[in-house]
Amino acid sequence: MSGLERLLRPRSVAIIGASADVSKTTGRPVGYLQRHGFGGEIWPVNPRVAEISGLRCHPDVASLPAAPDVGIVLLGADRAEDAVRVLATRGTAAAIVLAGGFAESGGQGGERQARLKAAAGGMRLLGPNTIGLVNLTDRIVLSASGALEMEEFFAGRIALVSQSGGILGAVLSRGAAQGIGFSSLVATGNEADLDVADLVDHLAEDAATDVIALYVEGLRRPDAFRAAARKAHAAGKRIVAFKVGRSEAGAQAAISHTGALAGADRLYDALFRQLGILRADRFSDLLDIAAALATRRVARGRRVAVLTSTGGAGALLADSFGLAGFSLPPPDAATADRLAQLTGEAAVANPLDLTLAGLKPEVMNGAIAALLESPGYDALAVVVGSSALAKPRLAADAIAAGQAISDKPVIAYLSPHAPQIGAALQRQGIPAASAPEAVATMLSALATAPVHALVPSPAAGVQAVPSGPMDEAESKALFARFGIAPVREVVCATPEDAQAAAAGLGGTVVLKALSKHLAHKSDVGGVRIGVPAQDVAAEGAAMLARVAAATGRAPEGLLVQEQLREGVEMILGLQRDPHLGTAILLGMGGVAAELFGDTALRLLPIGRAAAEGMLDELRGAGLLRGYRGRPRADVAALLDAVLAFARMGEALGARLETAEINPLFVLPEGEGVRAADALAILA
Amino acid sequence: MSGLERLLRPRSVAIIGASADVSKTTGRPVGYLQRHGFGGEIWPVNPRVAEISGLRCHPDVASLPAAPDVGIVLLGADRAEDAVRVLATRGTAAAIVLAGGFAESGGQGGERQARLKAAAGGMRLLGPNTIGLVNLTDRIVLSASGALEMEEFFAGRIALVSQSGGILGAVLSRGAAQGIGFSSLVATGNEADLDVADLVDHLAEDAATDVIALYVEGLRRPDAFRAAARKAHAAGKRIVAFKVGRSEAGAQAAISHTGALAGADRLYDALFRQLGILRADRFSDLLDIAAALATRRVARGRRVAVLTSTGGAGALLADSFGLAGFSLPPPDAATADRLAQLTGEAAVANPLDLTLAGLKPEVMNGAIAALLESPGYDALAVVVGSSALAKPRLAADAIAAGQAISDKPVIAYLSPHAPQIGAALQRQGIPAASAPEAVATMLSALATAPVHALVPSPAAGVQAVPSGPMDEAESKALFARFGIAPVREVVCATPEDAQAAAAGLGGTVVLKALSKHLAHKSDVGGVRIGVPAQDVAAEGAAMLARVAAATGRAPEGLLVQEQLREGVEMILGLQRDPHLGTAILLGMGGVAAELFGDTALRLLPIGRAAAEGMLDELRGAGLLRGYRGRPRADVAALLDAVLAFARMGEALGARLETAEINPLFVLPEGEGVRAADALAILA
Repeated sequence: MSGLERLLRPRSVAIIGASADVSKTTGRPVGYLQRHGFGGEIWPVNPRVAEISGLRCHPDVASLPAAPDVGIVLLGADRAEDAVRVLATRGTAAAIVLAGGFAESGGQGGERQARLKAAAGGMRLLGPNTIGLVNLTDRIVLSASGALEMEEFFAGRIALVSQSGGILGAVLSRGAAQGIGFSSLVATGNEADLDVADLVDHLAEDAATDVIALYVEGLRRPDAFRAAARKAHAAGKRIVAFKVGRSEAGAQAAISHTGALAGADRLYDALFRQLGILRADRFSDLLDIAAALATRRVARGRRVAVLTSTGGAGALLADSFGLAGFSLPPPDAATADRLAQLTGEAAVANPLDLTLAGLKPEVMNGAIAALLESPGYDALAVVVGSSALAKPRLAADAIAAGQAISDKPVIAYLSPHAPQIGAALQRQGIPAASAPEAVATMLSALATAPVHALVPSPAAGVQAVPSGPMDEAESKALFARFGIAPVREVVCATPEDAQAAAAGLGGTVVLKALSKHLAHKSDVGGVRIGVPAQDVAAEGAAMLARVAAATGRAPEGLLVQEQLREGVEMILGLQRDPHLGTAILLGMGGVAAELFGDTALRLLPIGRAAAEGMLDELRGAGLLRGYRGRPRADVAALLDAVLAFARMGEALGARLETAEINPLFVLPEGEGVRAADALAILA
Repeated sequence: MSGLERLLRPRSVAIIGASADVSKTTGRPVGYLQRHGFGGEIWPVNPRVAEISGLRCHPDVASLPAAPDVGIVLLGADRAEDAVRVLATRGTAAAIVLAGGFAESGGQGGERQARLKAAAGGMRLLGPNTIGLVNLTDRIVLSASGALEMEEFFAGRIALVSQSGGILGAVLSRGAAQGIGFSSLVATGNEADLDVADLVDHLAEDAATDVIALYVEGLRRPDAFRAAARKAHAAGKRIVAFKVGRSEAGAQAAISHTGALAGADRLYDALFRQLGILRADRFSDLLDIAAALATRRVARGRRVAVLTSTGGAGALLADSFGLAGFSLPPPDAATADRLAQLTGEAAVANPLDLTLAGLKPEVMNGAIAALLESPGYDALAVVVGSSALAKPRLAADAIAAGQAISDKPVIAYLSPHAPQIGAALQRQGIPAASAPEAVATMLSALATAPVHALVPSPAAGVQAVPSGPMDEAESKALFARFGIAPVREVVCATPEDAQAAAAGLGGTVVLKALSKHLAHKSDVGGVRIGVPAQDVAAEGAAMLARVAAATGRAPEGLLVQEQLREGVEMILGLQRDPHLGTAILLGMGGVAAELFGDTALRLLPIGRAAAEGMLDELRGAGLLRGYRGRPRADVAALLDAVLAFARMGEALGARLETAEINPLFVLPEGEGVRAADALAILA
């Protein structure tokens, strides 16, 4: 058994600093272990006490009869390090350090935490600054927190890993009230050693867990997390995550224009999406989605039937489903006949309102069977109305009977306040929600197929690329090596050369100042569009003077380009995040990316499906598809360019800081794409 | 007293069809009235029973000792009409008809409902197809519904008017569980007589009600509703509404292009906004916002302090607040000093984490006082953590003390499952929520100032405007009468005339086919941009032939226009909704309105503030404000044009079907706006 396995399923637990006073925090761990029937050894350690709750208390770790699987360290931050060292020396598999006052407190806390980690050596460490863990499957509480005070254990197939102890307590108590069971809950705290990635990796192999729910503030080891998530999905387990930090996105804007559009939280969005992890939008969704996934049912489409006995609740559900992209088609002819016979009503609709009069077991059972067996529906939502308060078993029995004959998802909606009915349904494996919007969110999760995350290819490396910023022409030359064609253009040393070059590029041209040190040419008058060929020398001379005056540095030369008249302008960018890796951004060009935020983001690597997904995400993509009589644009070439840019990002690896094509012209079908402006900065 | 006042506060109630069997639905009303201590007369009416629950049962309405204030009709749809007629004849103030089988059932139900209404004559009628009403202030239940079975009455200052009985029951039971009290709850059902507008009008004068919560599926009398909402706001009462139908918006698309952007649900959005009615986004928001409004506190800005004892919950709240547009500034220097003295920690932040150690009454009280008294905060959110389960009074007492010294809003967030604590807080007048997103929603409601709805001016009428569709030039001439300038243009009968006219309009012009019958000229080749003046005759001849071939009807002439080179393109439209009145739409032109849905909508009448609000709503409005070195556009002239168009809409009243300017060019500052294309259809 690994240290992590022994942490979650110990056969012996030493409690360092245990108190005999059960009213104290340090008195709780022994009590928790005893009360819930822990079958292994409990070894309190305290030199000032002889016995705790009928157990012999050991004066120190050296006196323990054997090395424990787990040592719970109840000491303060100043004494925890020594205790951890002694436990590690004794051969303990894992220690839990509850104390705060480490990295989270700033100042010298970081150094203290580093010493703690060093003291642990090869022993695994949970915390510091954690409330510990609860293994409900085996009825083991390793904690001193009052938030984990539990009357009864209702074990289930959902594991929770939380970077916050308070959130763990909140989720546990809310889950208990809703009848949602857990396999285990672990608070990782400061993650000096064990982190979310370790836990996900472990839970991927945990026979008691089908669904992994995460509360995340930030991932310390994204690559390890990626590998763990892939392992979990390969084992058929689903992951749902709630991550805070969505409103800090703006503050994390990166330097370049494209980067500013790609806030760090959006990178997490991309990461979760690409790993097939469902992201909970609201806090309550974390539990609701997990409960839905725990049914292991799948909606094969988004056509849903709603069964109700009260019209208003049916309307609420229909509205929420519609907003979430579901359809509520009327029953097919055969199903309509079956329902009409059952209800005695000629007209049957969706939502199907049985009314109070229809709330009889045979009608409920028959209607549920008919709707689930209809080829026209992928899932069913059943309203539990106020009449259920008098007959709580009616809906539960009917839904359970339906679940036995169909593998389609069924979700219950509780119209009145009826937590006890909801909990009873959940415990029967029927997800239940009291918010109509949550019902749609849960079913959306079951209609979202798990994706298989791509594994990065070993970086190929790119030879002979200089470091630092490149000028526009050099950037385009780099991009061209990966297959992205630039507009026709000529690099010129002097205004006179530029005028000569312009003659070959059409009646009017684009004229630009060329410099490695000029990221925003247009801000300093370094770009002129529509310059007649005969005016290029004069305009070029003026531009060189203007830019030199504005920046204090003379441009190295001029760039003369053909002026494209047709095509849809897009933005294609790469941005290196030091933590999460390289992100690729595709957006509509011009004002759309900035004013409308019309961009899509993924982390590398990506495949063609992801590139297509990015395009589908853009509201402005209609422009590419023959909008209002315009020619259809070369979408295939655009996707090729996205993949080429992604390959370049992978090949350059950490050397790439930023790369951007803005605009990238997508020409009419068959004519390809052209990079009209470009920027690259390599380390 | 009016009939409606007597309905809500009767001194005598006749129950037509009452049963002595309390297990039956028809046995409930007498029981409800007796159990909750109704002080008036209860008159059961049933020819087959002598006594019900100790009350003498009357054989018929004629035998009653007097005309009752209210008659509850428990009979089926087929017998209700006669009972209503007899009650009306007897001089009853109001009848409640519970039976369904009227307009909601389709077919002949509509006629049956019309007969019912006729039978009521001058007597007010609630229903049919209603569960009745509950007046919690006076402890009166007028219903036969099991959903209104209540153990205790917790009266409050919120009234609910619901078009669905099931929703009324759900809101009542959820409110009771959350400790939210109501003044009264009324289900209007089919609204054969009394509707939402009547109830709002009545509640505007109700001394027991501060907040009116609405569940709406559709408004039968929008003008009466407008007047009632204005009356309620004038009386200092706030209204919050939840309306279903948001996902049917697409299905209600109107005929013309602008209309298609203005789905009916968006019109309700506009209506509520313009009446100062808060619209609940999620169903649970209806109660949460009402509970917040019931405090009658106002957030004067969006700077919020968060006080917590658990870091995770603080992060959750901060994230939700950030997403909702609140800021969490750090404490000002004086407040920071005060907090540092209190907590003994040098560093104080926002969220302020007292940790478990800080959960002492003097620290909590002091921190709440310091944060509320800081000029840097407009409101406070307090986390109630799991420790509160052991000390439920701690937070409540501290918040109550804070409320006594400050009129700023304070909202509690329940981190663990703790409904009993939440209910206790609510009953003390402290709004509490268990969803972090709800806390932000509630505070947003308190930060939203009530607007004073404009009263429509009497339609002035417009003389000498023909009926039916107008051609582009006629439409512009109409718009010009209200002050909206067109581009320079000349109406021409022949291609040769057009060429002559073009000479005066610049080197290149816009050439269009002119016809009353051509709403979409460009689809049939009836628009050419950038036509050199010397080519206009040839192009005009070709265009006339092309359009005639495509439409089977020769255009009446040609329109030659100056071609504008500068300016931001917008859309300005009016659309008549037969039910809600005329809506005005302002959007960014070109692809933005269609692909990005960047439009703003209001119902007439509007004032300058509303026009400015529309502009602020447009994400693309940055283009008008000197985007990327472009000249600043003439925003003042644009606002004038919006108000001019609105005046035209008011003046034309129901005669106007649709009117649209697309594009409307907004020229650089000081140069005004120009209508470049226009369409109007009058009845």
